[in-house]
Amino acid sequence: MYKNRIEIIKKHLEVNNSQTTNNKDEVLEKELFNSIDTNINVGELKLLIDSVEESKYKDETREFIRNHPKFKENFIGLDMATYRQLVLEQCAAIANRGLIHFTDIKNNLHRYIGALEMFALYNNNILTKLSVQYTLFGGPIIFLGTSRHEKYIEDANTLKTMGCFAMTEIGHGSNVRGIETTAHYDKQTKEFIIHSPTPTSEKFWIGCAYLHATYAVVFANLIIDGTNYGIHAFIVPLRCPKSGAIMKGITIKDCGHKLGLNGIDNGQIRFDQVRIPRENLLNKYSDVSEDGVYKSQFNTPIKNFAATMSPFIVGRMAITKGCSGAAKTSLSIAIEFSHIRKQFGPSSNKELPLITLSSQQRRLMAPLARTILFDLYIQRLTNELCQEKLPASIHAHCSGIKAVYSWFCVAALQTCREACGGQGYRSANRIAEFKNDCDIICTYEGDNTVLMQQLAKYLLGVKQKQTNTTTNRIYLDGEDAKSLFFNFSNINQLFETREEMRLAELKQIIDNSKESAYFAFNNAIPWAVKLGFAHMTKIVFQNSINTLKLKNVKPLTHLIMLDALVSIEEDLGWFVSNHLISPNVAQSIPFLIQDLCFEVTKVSKQIIASFDIPENCKPSSKDLISDLF
Amino acid sequence: MYKNRIEIIKKHLEVNNSQTTNNKDEVLEKELFNSIDTNINVGELKLLIDSVEESKYKDETREFIRNHPKFKENFIGLDMATYRQLVLEQCAAIANRGLIHFTDIKNNLHRYIGALEMFALYNNNILTKLSVQYTLFGGPIIFLGTSRHEKYIEDANTLKTMGCFAMTEIGHGSNVRGIETTAHYDKQTKEFIIHSPTPTSEKFWIGCAYLHATYAVVFANLIIDGTNYGIHAFIVPLRCPKSGAIMKGITIKDCGHKLGLNGIDNGQIRFDQVRIPRENLLNKYSDVSEDGVYKSQFNTPIKNFAATMSPFIVGRMAITKGCSGAAKTSLSIAIEFSHIRKQFGPSSNKELPLITLSSQQRRLMAPLARTILFDLYIQRLTNELCQEKLPASIHAHCSGIKAVYSWFCVAALQTCREACGGQGYRSANRIAEFKNDCDIICTYEGDNTVLMQQLAKYLLGVKQKQTNTTTNRIYLDGEDAKSLFFNFSNINQLFETREEMRLAELKQIIDNSKESAYFAFNNAIPWAVKLGFAHMTKIVFQNSINTLKLKNVKPLTHLIMLDALVSIEEDLGWFVSNHLISPNVAQSIPFLIQDLCFEVTKVSKQIIASFDIPENCKPSSKDLISDLF
Ligand SMILES: Cc1cc2nc3c(=O)[nH]c(=O)nc-3n(C[C@H](O)[C@H](O)[C@H](O)COP(=O)(O)OP(=O)(O)OC[C@H]3O[C@@H](n4cnc5c(N)ncnc54)[C@H](O)[C@@H]3O)c2cc1C
Ligand SMILES: Cc1cc2nc3c(=O)[nH]c(=O)nc-3n(C[C@H](O)[C@H](O)[C@H](O)COP(=O)(O)OP(=O)(O)OC[C@H]3O[C@@H](n4cnc5c(N)ncnc54)[C@H](O)[C@@H]3O)c2cc1C
Repeated sequence: MYKNRIEIIKKHLEVNNSQTTNNKDEVLEKELFNSIDTNINVGELKLLIDSVEESKYKDETREFIRNHPKFKENFIGLDMATYRQLVLEQCAAIANRGLIHFTDIKNNLHRYIGALEMFALYNNNILTKLSVQYTLFGGPIIFLGTSRHEKYIEDANTLKTMGCFAMTEIGHGSNVRGIETTAHYDKQTKEFIIHSPTPTSEKFWIGCAYLHATYAVVFANLIIDGTNYGIHAFIVPLRCPKSGAIMKGITIKDCGHKLGLNGIDNGQIRFDQVRIPRENLLNKYSDVSEDGVYKSQFNTPIKNFAATMSPFIVGRMAITKGCSGAAKTSLSIAIEFSHIRKQFGPSSNKELPLITLSSQQRRLMAPLARTILFDLYIQRLTNELCQEKLPASIHAHCSGIKAVYSWFCVAALQTCREACGGQGYRSANRIAEFKNDCDIICTYEGDNTVLMQQLAKYLLGVKQKQTNTTTNRIYLDGEDAKSLFFNFSNINQLFETREEMRLAELKQIIDNSKESAYFAFNNAIPWAVKLGFAHMTKIVFQNSINTLKLKNVKPLTHLIMLDALVSIEEDLGWFVSNHLISPNVAQSIPFLIQDLCFEVTKVSKQIIASFDIPENCKPSSKDLISDLF
Repeated sequence: MYKNRIEIIKKHLEVNNSQTTNNKDEVLEKELFNSIDTNINVGELKLLIDSVEESKYKDETREFIRNHPKFKENFIGLDMATYRQLVLEQCAAIANRGLIHFTDIKNNLHRYIGALEMFALYNNNILTKLSVQYTLFGGPIIFLGTSRHEKYIEDANTLKTMGCFAMTEIGHGSNVRGIETTAHYDKQTKEFIIHSPTPTSEKFWIGCAYLHATYAVVFANLIIDGTNYGIHAFIVPLRCPKSGAIMKGITIKDCGHKLGLNGIDNGQIRFDQVRIPRENLLNKYSDVSEDGVYKSQFNTPIKNFAATMSPFIVGRMAITKGCSGAAKTSLSIAIEFSHIRKQFGPSSNKELPLITLSSQQRRLMAPLARTILFDLYIQRLTNELCQEKLPASIHAHCSGIKAVYSWFCVAALQTCREACGGQGYRSANRIAEFKNDCDIICTYEGDNTVLMQQLAKYLLGVKQKQTNTTTNRIYLDGEDAKSLFFNFSNINQLFETREEMRLAELKQIIDNSKESAYFAFNNAIPWAVKLGFAHMTKIVFQNSINTLKLKNVKPLTHLIMLDALVSIEEDLGWFVSNHLISPNVAQSIPFLIQDLCFEVTKVSKQIIASFDIPENCKPSSKDLISDLF
């Protein structure tokens, strides 16, 4: 198989043709050669990270978290029932304060996304519960429903009624198209009959279903007179809105104890011939007339399916904010700890803080940089989502950032836990809870490995349409490695070229396969994932550079370069073996990274101050190092 | 800083001078060029992995786990108090059955280590609790005590009395030499007065202290007439052996809820002038006479300190078995799931098991191989520990394997969780519990980053003593990458050379530093860690090859090659930029790895069968995929 690899690039050109970088760069790049400017404007940095559009909402939310009594209660080590109740009450308090509105995902995405991130600084159960209500239940109603479904909005807005999102079944998670639940149309009564035909068709994992949801948006196969029109979304009452009693024909079980998110009541739902009115079909794109005639805006079921899945775009963005909040708080905890905690020193009566250790700097500064750059990229995606006409890339990019951010987050939180030594293992330290809660972001709202393939397929598709434009390939070689790397244009070209070559490589592996299209692709998944990473790294980098050029907020230049070099190091074997970086130049990378970590460490306290994390999101100073205070 | 890097190796020699490999290799290597032999002898493989020495004890323990009622109780989602009680009862059952003995760590290490690994297949709380009793409490008594301490053994053997190990303090974890607890000798009463002079000197994290321990082995500064003789170990009664009441002057608090291991009662201990008899000093190496004269076998406190720490060698080995058990069970769960779980397929009515996906093979087979090879290496270390005269390397190697195995384990368990999708997030699936429990193995019994430095310092020391012998450097280049890699001699030389160069690099960074020795080393920690990895990879590989040559148990050849290539890929940037592998040859590695994963997948069910994991260590088939059965 390895013989099918792409041809080795023999032409090494050193051309700067990138449009992302220009002369202005030089001024910025110069900073990198000097000691970091420790004179950080924390307010300015905060505004950059919060974004102008979200800043106001974020501050309002911070204020709320700081002061509301429900956010002062302990949630560590609670039993499941108590935890679920607390999270419910916290969410209700948020809704009642009007911090977010049910229609925000359409009309004020910045408010919604901004507030979610702030709640994620505190705890990911809240973010998850809110996401279920506002994006998973709200999304389909708002994006797939019509005026006849507006009646659900008012009560849902204040959490007087709650909803859930019933797509996954025991038998089908990633492969949503395989779900088995049926919705037969009964012309006589003008009703749909929602039914779980097999044990594997029972809905599973449905957040909010076990205890709190009155309604479910159920995804099921719409069938009229024996013809299956594919998957559609229906509003199904699970409980009586007044009494709360579970409706006839419905059985709901608890999904049980989980690694994390035990404040969320995930449930398993079985439908036994449950009748709902015809009007409960979310009918924006497709509808069934009273007499059972199916009508769709789309000429194929697959297109209707794609439209039905569209609310997910916002969902993935929203859930990614869980990573953003958790990473920021956990990094703050680990960095603060490292500034305070002393261990070892040049002499037995002079111990030094952990932050003076090269390893501690290396472990913590690299994820700190990436967290901020990912956040800047999400700002851009949020702006794109607010546009009238969405860019064609939006779906792929929301999938991509969700995957790379959540994988990164899991690793970063692990590092934070370890960086705090034993103290990081105490629940009171908070990192533990974030770690367990965020783990599932790799899986839900689309499994990462599956999403990365969607992104790769998108990129393959774009390529197909392009006439043959190839980037000028770059080869970094020379004596002065520092000057070669401290050059945004070079970095950009490295990332451009890698993506292009990764794409060509994937295409070639698939094309050369002797197997059918399905197997040809399935045998190349690791390469598709690599392509996804290459692409996301590139666009996150380009977005960072664009942000920097709008305004040079310190220490952004250093953060960008640190993250870029770390990205290169993560794939260094590839860069060198594919002749983009010379072996000799490559050798300098670990040293450059270590130097940058050392510089960024000098301003690490200011950086975490700019996150403006409410105190009750973090351990008390007593809990940072037990009883040391 | 990067300019201080080691000189680029310009001489590229392709010489096979390794002593680890020879002509017999060719026969073994040939296997790699063909499809894997699927005719696996599961019994033979099981014996290899269990080891001849431990096999009998392991089978006895498996039998016990399978049948004892205490191992049939649910431990998922228990509250802390109930969980702690259950773990206590399970440990008592083990002790009463005589599966392990208090003196095993000295007289029958194979029985102890073998049994521990089996319990770790089930749950790491049990392994931890047993380790506290048998290695942490027992180790000092057996290795640092004398005949006057034998009286503790009988009751401890059956867990009638339990002990704990009180070394860590709030202020000092990694830097044990900094602990503040004092043990003043009082000539008048012939007693030691154990005291916590400051809030930071309180003992913290002491496993078994909060509820169950009668005695503590307390590490404290031995002081006579104002002279501090350094850290020594003392037996201090925490509770009245009869009534269980906490002794006068002792305060014990709960360390609280943790990320994992909530079945363990970690406690915080404060000593307020607690008097113990002079005989409670563990006096094998140093003693205090009745009239207060200090006498030591060592002429410096640091040597006495080193001897005092020696029981840790076994402790690290023992705790590493936690990784071994957790990795085996978790990989078995994820692999079984992947063989059963169907999702997607070439057509909508033909879905295929996940194991057919290249990504799933890549994720699961690589850690499967490494787990087995690490286990073979631990067998070797265990044999070394049973020798009359311990090799000089033993301490460094026990530290090294503990660090690399636990880091690997954390990553492998994360992969297993994700590979099971949502099901992996359910506590009933079991991986979640292993993940949280094993996380702390990176930290306790010596933090990994600190241990890796010990290993690096050991290697620097060995180097210092050696006359200048350098390996013949290898450069892998040519058209036929497969033949270059499927050659154990080449791989061995790659690993030998890397270690040597990494060592030279670290030495040079330190030597070139303008700072004092302390800072020179501290600024180079990431390089010390890399050296540690290079060394451990080499010796684990060499041990695997030696094992293979004694007996070619299938599919060992494939596992060794897969793991070797994965190790190379993990550091590929370094290998290529340091001119050990040519860029073109390097490009083939991902393809070779994928092919090997594909081959190993064919026998993956047999491999996990050879682990012979008792059914009650794994989720019920119902819990593997909820309600699918
Ligand atoms: C806490 C929690 C809350 C949830 N909340 C909801 C909810 O409210 N509503 C709802 O509808 N669902 C919900 N889900 C379900 C969630 O969306 C699914 O778990 C997810 O889509 C993955 O599906 P699965 O669990 O069936 O995994 P599977 O699809 O079985 O995947 C298992 C493994 O196989 C791999 N895999 C699968 N297909 C491929 C492929 N083609 N290529 C490569 N690898 C592949 C995956 O990477 C994964 O590692 C929730 C899940 C959890 C755990
Ligand atoms: C669940 C649990 C059970 C335990 N059981 C016991 C017990 O029974 N008895 C007992 O005595 N102790 C016990 N411990 C304590 C354990 O041994 C310590 O946590 C461990 O030694 C680390 O010390 P620390 O927590 O103080 O971390 P610190 O030493 O403060 O380390 C914090 C961080 O700094 C880094 N660091 C520190 N020094 C260096 C350095 N020189 N170079 C690079 N990095 C460095 C570490 O990598 C770590 O990431 C237990 C701990 C836990 C969490």
